[in-house]
Amino acid sequence: RFGEAELEDQVGATTGLAWTEVGGEILTIEAVMLRGKGRIQTTGKLGDVMKESVQAAESYVKANALKFGIKPTLFEKRDIHVHVPEGATPKDGPSAGVAMITTIVSVLTGIAVAKDIAMTGEITLRGKVLAIGGLKEKLLAALRAGIKRVLIPKDNEKDLAEIPDNVKKGLTIIPVSTVDEVLAHALVTAPVGIEWSEPEEVAQVPGKAGDEERDGVIRH
Amino acid sequence: RFGEAELEDQVGATTGLAWTEVGGEILTIEAVMLRGKGRIQTTGKLGDVMKESVQAAESYVKANALKFGIKPTLFEKRDIHVHVPEGATPKDGPSAGVAMITTIVSVLTGIAVAKDIAMTGEITLRGKVLAIGGLKEKLLAALRAGIKRVLIPKDNEKDLAEIPDNVKKGLTIIPVSTVDEVLAHALVTAPVGIEWSEPEEVAQVPGKAGDEERDGVIRH
Amino acid sequence: RFGEAELEDQVGATTGLAWTEVGGEILTIEAVMLRGKGRIQTTGKLGDVMKESVQAAESYVKANALKFGIKPTLFEKRDIHVHVPEGATPKDGPSAGVAMITTIVSVLTGIAVAKDIAMTGEITLRGKVLAIGGLKEKLLAALRAGIKRVLIPKDNEKDLAEIPDNVKKGLTIIPVSTVDEVLAHALVTAPVGIEWSEPEEVAQVPGKAGDEERDGVIRH
Amino acid sequence: RFGEAELEDQVGATTGLAWTEVGGEILTIEAVMLRGKGRIQTTGKLGDVMKESVQAAESYVKANALKFGIKPTLFEKRDIHVHVPEGATPKDGPSAGVAMITTIVSVLTGIAVAKDIAMTGEITLRGKVLAIGGLKEKLLAALRAGIKRVLIPKDNEKDLAEIPDNVKKGLTIIPVSTVDEVLAHALVTAPVGIEWSEPEEVAQVPGKAGDEERDGVIRH
Amino acid sequence: RFGEAELEDQVGATTGLAWTEVGGEILTIEAVMLRGKGRIQTTGKLGDVMKESVQAAESYVKANALKFGIKPTLFEKRDIHVHVPEGATPKDGPSAGVAMITTIVSVLTGIAVAKDIAMTGEITLRGKVLAIGGLKEKLLAALRAGIKRVLIPKDNEKDLAEIPDNVKKGLTIIPVSTVDEVLAHALVTAPVGIEWSEPEEVAQVPGKAGDEERDGVIRH
Amino acid sequence: RFGEAELEDQVGATTGLAWTEVGGEILTIEAVMLRGKGRIQTTGKLGDVMKESVQAAESYVKANALKFGIKPTLFEKRDIHVHVPEGATPKDGPSAGVAMITTIVSVLTGIAVAKDIAMTGEITLRGKVLAIGGLKEKLLAALRAGIKRVLIPKDNEKDLAEIPDNVKKGLTIIPVSTVDEVLAHALVTAPVGIEWSEPEEVAQVPGKAGDEERDGVIRH
Ligand SMILES: [Ca+2]
Ligand SMILES: [Ca+2]
Ligand SMILES: [Ca+2]
Ligand SMILES: [Ca+2]
Ligand SMILES: [Ca+2]
Ligand SMILES: [Ca+2]
Ligand SMILES: [Ca+2]
Ligand SMILES: [Ca+2]
Ligand SMILES: [Ca+2]
Ligand SMILES: [Ca+2]
Ligand SMILES: [Ca+2]
Ligand SMILES: [Ca+2]
Repeated sequence: RFGEAELEDQVGATTGLAWTEVGGEILTIEAVMLRGKGRIQTTGKLGDVMKESVQAAESYVKANALKFGIKPTLFEKRDIHVHVPEGATPKDGPSAGVAMITTIVSVLTGIAVAKDIAMTGEITLRGKVLAIGGLKEKLLAALRAGIKRVLIPKDNEKDLAEIPDNVKKGLTIIPVSTVDEVLAHALVTAPVGIEWSEPEEVAQVPGKAGDEERDGVIRH
Repeated sequence: RFGEAELEDQVGATTGLAWTEVGGEILTIEAVMLRGKGRIQTTGKLGDVMKESVQAAESYVKANALKFGIKPTLFEKRDIHVHVPEGATPKDGPSAGVAMITTIVSVLTGIAVAKDIAMTGEITLRGKVLAIGGLKEKLLAALRAGIKRVLIPKDNEKDLAEIPDNVKKGLTIIPVSTVDEVLAHALVTAPVGIEWSEPEEVAQVPGKAGDEERDGVIRH
Repeated sequence: RFGEAELEDQVGATTGLAWTEVGGEILTIEAVMLRGKGRIQTTGKLGDVMKESVQAAESYVKANALKFGIKPTLFEKRDIHVHVPEGATPKDGPSAGVAMITTIVSVLTGIAVAKDIAMTGEITLRGKVLAIGGLKEKLLAALRAGIKRVLIPKDNEKDLAEIPDNVKKGLTIIPVSTVDEVLAHALVTAPVGIEWSEPEEVAQVPGKAGDEERDGVIRH
Repeated sequence: RFGEAELEDQVGATTGLAWTEVGGEILTIEAVMLRGKGRIQTTGKLGDVMKESVQAAESYVKANALKFGIKPTLFEKRDIHVHVPEGATPKDGPSAGVAMITTIVSVLTGIAVAKDIAMTGEITLRGKVLAIGGLKEKLLAALRAGIKRVLIPKDNEKDLAEIPDNVKKGLTIIPVSTVDEVLAHALVTAPVGIEWSEPEEVAQVPGKAGDEERDGVIRH
Repeated sequence: RFGEAELEDQVGATTGLAWTEVGGEILTIEAVMLRGKGRIQTTGKLGDVMKESVQAAESYVKANALKFGIKPTLFEKRDIHVHVPEGATPKDGPSAGVAMITTIVSVLTGIAVAKDIAMTGEITLRGKVLAIGGLKEKLLAALRAGIKRVLIPKDNEKDLAEIPDNVKKGLTIIPVSTVDEVLAHALVTAPVGIEWSEPEEVAQVPGKAGDEERDGVIRH
Repeated sequence: RFGEAELEDQVGATTGLAWTEVGGEILTIEAVMLRGKGRIQTTGKLGDVMKESVQAAESYVKANALKFGIKPTLFEKRDIHVHVPEGATPKDGPSAGVAMITTIVSVLTGIAVAKDIAMTGEITLRGKVLAIGGLKEKLLAALRAGIKRVLIPKDNEKDLAEIPDNVKKGLTIIPVSTVDEVLAHALVTAPVGIEWSEPEEVAQVPGKAGDEERDGVIRH
């Protein structure tokens, strides 16, 4: 029963939606966290654009770690492996970006992803969700696989006019424009942010540093 | 007599089943553990999909090390070399995933693999066993080679209807859906799990950390 | 509404202008700063020339760090990830150089980039702005996207004669010849320079070193 | 007189047998040991399969170092360079595996290889010798080059029926099925094994560790 | 006005002469020095031969550092980035070698390059200047760009017979055969050499070492 | 006058002989020694076979360092850069091996190479000199360039019958079969060997180690 909605909420696994020549399909984005030093590894016959999408997701999560309650120093001791079964099927495109971020946040926080949700959307480094192609095919695939809720980019809302009514009835379609909205829907509980005071020697923004005379720095 | 069932239970060697243009064939997945730093090396003219399959197997074992009684720190001091003879024959595809995991767990725990068993199945990072192609050819090859028991993916059970009766009679065919089931059949004794208390500074899940005020972290 | 002018001033995001076969287009250059060791990472399907443009921008900023109030030691502890959405669209050429530098300085100083500005221009390691192609198409794209001010290379000023009057009326076009001029227009506040006294052992210019007899060096 | 049997027993040089389009040929596998950190370097225009054969040979020797009297820590301080003259001639295939292992063991132990012996056979990580192709051409080449004894894979014994009588008379043909047998014939004196007690912290097999409570490990 | 002679003497920028299908052209070789560890980075769409030319220039300068007053230890803490604008134009060939060395010495010593000079010539590791092609086109380009003095390889002196008189009148053409001569003309002040006494443990030439009995070395 | 015999004995430069489609040619193999960590760098548009030839030369010199009076620890602190001008001309083949070794030994020992000598020959890791092709063309090129003595492989001696008498009269042709003979002719003074007592912990040959009980080793 691979290729259908998950049977239970999972940590480190998100359902994405892909658009292939033979129609839409659901795909699972899996991740595990391993001892390491902040590297990310990808497998599943991913094309260059999808690999870059994983890298963007990783950098977004690292740059916003505190918001998710993740200590920035964690990445010095952990690697992440992102895998997209089925391993013999080539996959590409940026539209799994939201699912990549969701999976990575889930595995790093230990918070499960809701089993009834699927999602599609390119992400940017600033956490925006960009429009994707093949919306109709993707929604049909979600319906077929038993998905209940689908997150789509706000910029694709205009394409909903062309979606058959039975699809729109069978699915709760939720337009989102930021990663924050994605995670609010997808994670079963909300991450709790933390604060972090970086050691002095790497604080670098002039307007915020309190003791600029240290370390040989003289303002002029 | 290479290309036939093993004569005795072996540590670090599992019999897989491949599907080639000229029919099914058995292949041996071998591994040795070497001093190193957690890297995995693959040889045997493996295609990209099979190499990624080895990486997924490696990450699964690392992420589930405690279940197998393997200290997580072991990987900081050991490399693993996975080799698939015969070295001149190109090999590819994800269906050796279960055999990869079995070989790696065997070499890391020192527990032998049963000599009368062969197996086929793609694996995911979460330890699921996914469907494979060429089931008939693979089972015929197993029979020819003197194999007694064959592990196949649960999702391939539906294909058994097309398998000739003499094949089904000559083999004990065992459908499995998880890596745990694979190992329960394939290893001659069950691995004994261990517990592990990670040093404080890398414990990172907010809901589980007991002293969040340390290391400059303040919950908000 | 991706592909239009930003709604607010942003840190680490600059609007560039690209010239494609189907006309001009605006593109966003995004960056985040991450814990690391001075490396730069690029994503967004960038061609080799655009990747080299990012490297030149990085080296310019590193070599002129003090001018921007950035401690040179910061780079030993931080990586920068530059991303150009939309991830499936190939992008190339050196003309995003000025936007690359602006984004990198913004993310390193924490100073926002003015939301109403777009820019185009190749940069050199010495901070010169070189001429680009496709000026007309780029200006049209800026106008369409709601941009108010556009920075262009001084060496392209001669091409303004061929630009339609309505475009020139709708935009404030500002020719620039150095990176300093670019930043004076693009950043919402001016960076404040710092001084830095390098530890003795790496001071190497003979005419400036005060105690040449140290470290086994004898002038002759 | 390159291309003929060696004039004296050599440390770090073994005579292999290759099968080319113009017939069989003898080739020399040379190795030197260098200060380094456990890497292996290969030269001599080797194809991918032959390079992987060298890696398999290296891992076999590392995993069985004690049997050969080699301290496992040696590899932390030494590299090995394997070269196959003549450098302009492309070489490939797995059948030089036995010669690779023999050369590596010879250079690491300082024990010479018998000058009158040539060999052919693929090796596995577990030290099995697998069948090769072109047996007749290889034996003819050995005879022509003045070789006295030839080691062939046991699995090729069946092919001896097709070998001309004069070849079988001129050569002592020795079928072997393991690396141990290869080395017993090829090295002029037998390696003397050593025992080695690994420091506690890397002993990891549950059934063998004596003090599982250490290092935070609790059996369950 | 890029593509013309510089307006002032610059540190880290030299004018080279290239020979393209559409005639000769001047190009600027720029460099900056960055914190690092002795690596060299090249950008500007350079072909393999030109990249190797940069490496040869780098090694020449490193091997002759004392002559230029550069402490050898400087390279342990600095990287050099060499860039050749315009970034979209492919460039190749070894004839920018003299300009590469001049730029690198300039940026490492802080001594400016004379603004009225251009140069062409391949360099060797020993500091010889080798003949180049396209002399006529290169000289014409120099004249057009407002250059006053041009350094050419001594081995190209024979080609001056074919150069039009007006070119020879408009330019001071200076044949050179060594890097020392190049730098004597190109740098606005002469570098001042230093002496350096290497710590004992890396002094290795037998005839020069004074205390060979140390470090376990016994002469025989 | 590049392409002719050297005017004086040089440290780190040897004259080799190449065989090209348009006849024989002399080429110079240059090297410099740089601060580093035992790496070798090659430039001059060298093909893969010639690059491997440099690696073999490097390993031969490292493995025989004591014979040449070179402390083995030197390589931990030095890199070598081998360059073959003219940088735009592709070069390949193993026949420059003897010149590679000569250049490397020269630069490491500081002993000059005789200016009147040229050489050709493939080398092996054990210091044998193997036959090369194009002997006639190479000897003609040597004569044309003003060379007096030429070292050729002993295995090419049989080809001297086809060499015109005037060539054989104009050159002193010296057949050699080992690297030792090459260096005896090519270097202006003989290297003086040293002895070296390796620290205990890396002595590994069983038959030679005096205190096998140390380091946990027990003979059996
Ligand atoms: Ca599917
Ligand atoms: Ca997609
Ligand atoms: Ca087979
Ligand atoms: Ca398969
Ligand atoms: Ca667009
Ligand atoms: Ca462009
Ligand atoms: Ca031959
Ligand atoms: Ca072969
Ligand atoms: Ca130009
Ligand atoms: Ca050129
Ligand atoms: Ca020439
Ligand atoms: Ca050659």
